Amino acid sequence: MNPLTIQPIGIVKTISPEPEGDDWSKVLSELHIDEAFASGLEGLGDWSHIVVIYSMHGSQFSPEEHLVRSPGLDLPEVGIFAQRARFHPNTIGLTAVRLMEINDTVIKVKGLDAIDKTPILDIKPYAPIYDGVQDPLVPAWFIQLMQGNV
Amino acid sequence: MNPLTIQPIGIVKTISPEPEGDDWSKVLSELHIDEAFASGLEGLGDWSHIVVIYSMHGSQFSPEEHLVRSPGLDLPEVGIFAQRARFHPNTIGLTAVRLMEINDTVIKVKGLDAIDKTPILDIKPYAPIYDGVQDPLVPAWFIQLMQGNV
Repeated sequence: MNPLTIQPIGIVKTISPEPEGDDWSKVLSELHIDEAFASGLEGLGDWSHIVVIYSMHGSQFSPEEHLVRSPGLDLPEVGIFAQRARFHPNTIGLTAVRLMEINDTVIKVKGLDAIDKTPILDIKPYAPIYDGVQDPLVPAWFIQLMQGNV
Repeated sequence: MNPLTIQPIGIVKTISPEPEGDDWSKVLSELHIDEAFASGLEGLGDWSHIVVIYSMHGSQFSPEEHLVRSPGLDLPEVGIFAQRARFHPNTIGLTAVRLMEINDTVIKVKGLDAIDKTPILDIKPYAPIYDGVQDPLVPAWFIQLMQGNV
């Protein structure tokens, strides 16, 4: 299969201090979108949430280390595609966030788990028909991980 | 910003006939993942849903045509980032789907709105903390579009 070349459309600027743990839910960030796409943001403010697709450019996949790994201390080893770790073969990040405010090409959001200077690949309005799931099942280890019991 | 090169990890094979309209919710597809990543799928079956990130390789963004456009007949023009059209500057697709079955490196899913031979960029397990939103607001035009009233 042919590789795909993607040009980032903007960059993340975190405006809260980055959390020490894994809880980014209250972090405020700005998405600085390329001025060339300014008119493409018209009407975005009519949605309450957006999905941000970004490049975890600091992460590097290594098959030996990451293809099967434990997602946290004392948790069972599982495949990389069965976890949200940032070491997938393509280090594409994906998070649904609250849209707070738009000023020209700067979009303020809450809950984005991306570090400062993260390249943004796309943003999409959050639409339940594409993004929402009723009562999804998750593994027991994931609940433990999210509760910080590991 | 530097462009990013992404190597697809697999390819979509639709096994239902593709719908004539926009309703892909019942479409069954297989995700054929590269054998090199076989062990990376371990444990994926413990999740009920996955998010598929794919390349809409047949779509091509044109600023003149797509930056601001109507999402459907008689609907108001809005920016491309305020709609789920496949003409975003980076034609990355994103859909949460039901995981039906896994056989070796073939993942059967339901509800993927991607045509046959679509390159797959990543898959992630659907985790409410990253992907779910409580009571998102969507614009009136989007509700009309989804109800097929346009």
